[in-house]
Amino acid sequence: MLPIAMSDIHAHLTQEHVEVLFGKGHQLTKWRDLTIPGAYACNETVEVRGPSGSIKGAVVVGPTRKYTQVEISLTNAAVLGIKPPLRESGDLEGSPGAVLVGTAGELALEKGIVAALRHIHMNTNDAREFGVKDGQRVKIRVPGERALVYENVIIRVDPEWALEMHVDVDEGHAAGVVDFQLVELIR
Amino acid sequence: MLPIAMSDIHAHLTQEHVEVLFGKGHQLTKWRDLTIPGAYACNETVEVRGPSGSIKGAVVVGPTRKYTQVEISLTNAAVLGIKPPLRESGDLEGSPGAVLVGTAGELALEKGIVAALRHIHMNTNDAREFGVKDGQRVKIRVPGERALVYENVIIRVDPEWALEMHVDVDEGHAAGVVDFQLVELIR
Repeated sequence: MLPIAMSDIHAHLTQEHVEVLFGKGHQLTKWRDLTIPGAYACNETVEVRGPSGSIKGAVVVGPTRKYTQVEISLTNAAVLGIKPPLRESGDLEGSPGAVLVGTAGELALEKGIVAALRHIHMNTNDAREFGVKDGQRVKIRVPGERALVYENVIIRVDPEWALEMHVDVDEGHAAGVVDFQLVELIR
Repeated sequence: MLPIAMSDIHAHLTQEHVEVLFGKGHQLTKWRDLTIPGAYACNETVEVRGPSGSIKGAVVVGPTRKYTQVEISLTNAAVLGIKPPLRESGDLEGSPGAVLVGTAGELALEKGIVAALRHIHMNTNDAREFGVKDGQRVKIRVPGERALVYENVIIRVDPEWALEMHVDVDEGHAAGVVDFQLVELIR
């Protein structure tokens, strides 16, 4: 068994884009740590504007990255009027863009709007215990009144990572997930 | 295989409540037929107000019923600040209320806000072909990039009904559902 958590709409930004959105020389400020070591939710949020609507308050996740990426659910996508591909983090080729709005400016992204592929973070010991490898796809069963089995869940192994499955809010709600409840890995 | 369709937030109303919301003597007006024989989406919409937020544009589904019920997703529930139970249509005891707002007035519902139990409508011949009975729970597999298996899907049999599975928008998006795509019934 392993814990599951839902990710709401959020943005990863380059330092250059941080400065466009929040001002020259601006540094991201931590709101709270995430369960992924080194990652944190920031006080900074952006508005995401698409062809058919906009969503305010998308949390920026720090630290800055080499690419700017906004992870949205398909419910967010319907509001924005964008069709994001299902992708792993950083795989942005051919993904659609959107306009990001911060406190100091706005930014027309040409690409970077994706729906995250559901995945499990684990360390090397966890992988050995579960008998799985980085990049492998497994099934995960969520028990309960809205029980379901997610297929095509990708395993990601890193020595630093805490064991946790990540789904978006649509995926979590479909199973009646409560953050950090335990789910079952099925090979 | 059978078709699946997503239901967005919507309201069923009593004639009394139609008149509170849209004016004395008001009759619901059809926008378009639904795939459920006799049921139709109306031109009338309501705003649903909860303790933490409001959602405008919830379509009223006609004809009027003996009870007023609003079916919401868990994403809607998070916006409204309401915790709806998972229920079959009409099973409203102990469910929370909300304020409904129409063009002519508003209404403080004491109960009637529910999340719909995912279900399959079928006629008697379909039930015989699938080898299932009214009230039985089955599993349904959605194929594709976001493949998943819904458990606890309840079978509803009525001689008049067209064969169709109904899920809410969270549930549909979690599986990357496109309305009327085919899914697989697993006993």
